[in-house]
Amino acid sequence: MAVRVDQGLVMLSDTRTNAGMDNIARFRKSFTYEVPGERAITLMCSGNLSITQGVKTVLSRAIKDSAHDPEIETILNCPTMHRVAQIVGEAMCAMQNRYRNTIEMQGAAADASILISGQRKGGKPRLYLVYSAGNFIEATADTPFFQIGEHKYGKPILDRIIRPETSLEDAVKAVLVSMDSTLRSNLSVGMPLDLTVIERDSCAFGIRTRIEADNEQFAMISQSWSAALRKGFESLPNVLD
Amino acid sequence: MAVRVDQGLVMLSDTRTNAGMDNIARFRKSFTYEVPGERAITLMCSGNLSITQGVKTVLSRAIKDSAHDPEIETILNCPTMHRVAQIVGEAMCAMQNRYRNTIEMQGAAADASILISGQRKGGKPRLYLVYSAGNFIEATADTPFFQIGEHKYGKPILDRIIRPETSLEDAVKAVLVSMDSTLRSNLSVGMPLDLTVIERDSCAFGIRTRIEADNEQFAMISQSWSAALRKGFESLPNVLD
Repeated sequence: MAVRVDQGLVMLSDTRTNAGMDNIARFRKSFTYEVPGERAITLMCSGNLSITQGVKTVLSRAIKDSAHDPEIETILNCPTMHRVAQIVGEAMCAMQNRYRNTIEMQGAAADASILISGQRKGGKPRLYLVYSAGNFIEATADTPFFQIGEHKYGKPILDRIIRPETSLEDAVKAVLVSMDSTLRSNLSVGMPLDLTVIERDSCAFGIRTRIEADNEQFAMISQSWSAALRKGFESLPNVLD
Repeated sequence: MAVRVDQGLVMLSDTRTNAGMDNIARFRKSFTYEVPGERAITLMCSGNLSITQGVKTVLSRAIKDSAHDPEIETILNCPTMHRVAQIVGEAMCAMQNRYRNTIEMQGAAADASILISGQRKGGKPRLYLVYSAGNFIEATADTPFFQIGEHKYGKPILDRIIRPETSLEDAVKAVLVSMDSTLRSNLSVGMPLDLTVIERDSCAFGIRTRIEADNEQFAMISQSWSAALRKGFESLPNVLD
């Protein structure tokens, strides 16, 4: 999930992939690109892993090649975040064109989606959702967060908390308790988590960390939230009178 | 959703059906059958509406016909709740056999599922989930609640609250706040709600009521829960220090 509030951007992903219940693995789904002070970008992927890894390889190869040939356009040297979304969309489209038919002939799903959040110097913090067809939408004040992958369990708390004026601190707490709910209810989502935070106009990562299963701060948030929910539930008015 | 706790059974359904976003209607999904003091049964349906209405018609016709011919077996005169589940499963199977192929030829989904909760005199409170194939499972102490239809948004709070020892009062509150979360996050779920409660060994409905959109008690639960969540959220420890 990714959140855009007035104070900046917060991105959180898990690391569990599955090709059926009996085929579970751990893969990073969050990838960061940074020229500190100039731009910071997080990509988060869901859906067909071969497709999203392919997209990432195309983007990374362009960055590597641009070291020798500055004419090559990359997500780190292109003029705007909007152009970043286009470049990711084009790479998505190329991968879908190459593999979609053969993947579907095997009875598998080729769909994938990618969240892009970031800011470049002189621009605003942006959050995009790129679909399988390479088209994309941008988060707005009306809808300041996106979720991809298993999103339903964790959506109610984001619906209640996230507004443009929500503080960065509260946005981080909200994505953590949202993920905590999803972790409890769905085995296809699993620790560790990857968290990134880009403070507005810093154009750099304030936080870029992996939260392991034994992370004390996450355990504290999880336990505090459980206790708060239980206390809140106990304070509800009686209905059977 | 339906909950079986030590103190009895709680069932809650919404009333919104849809055949696409632009084709929304209101239909009762919860049906009650009662011989007060002898047995009380709630059925709740989801999935293809023509299938579940067909099942209900078969069950109701048998009850009507049995008034003249007591030899006819119905869910109100059969010996056990287990047999009730079999009878519902047989009606489901007959409807699927009659319509499934033609429904699927039209590109529509024929799947349906039915929750059955109830108690007959001399038996225990039972909760069953009947699938499209007519087979069924029963709720146990390990899994004391079932949800059908749009279940994900409202599952985390049930996962946290519902245990066999949960009071009937708390079970009612839990299904109401669970539904409240689902109502907020998904347009395919809508008011009014149908709530039934069967207290253990009463073999009768303690509560059998429709909760309309302007119901003050539900509004109070909804607002109290919002306030409790916000207060709980505000009490979480800081993570960005």
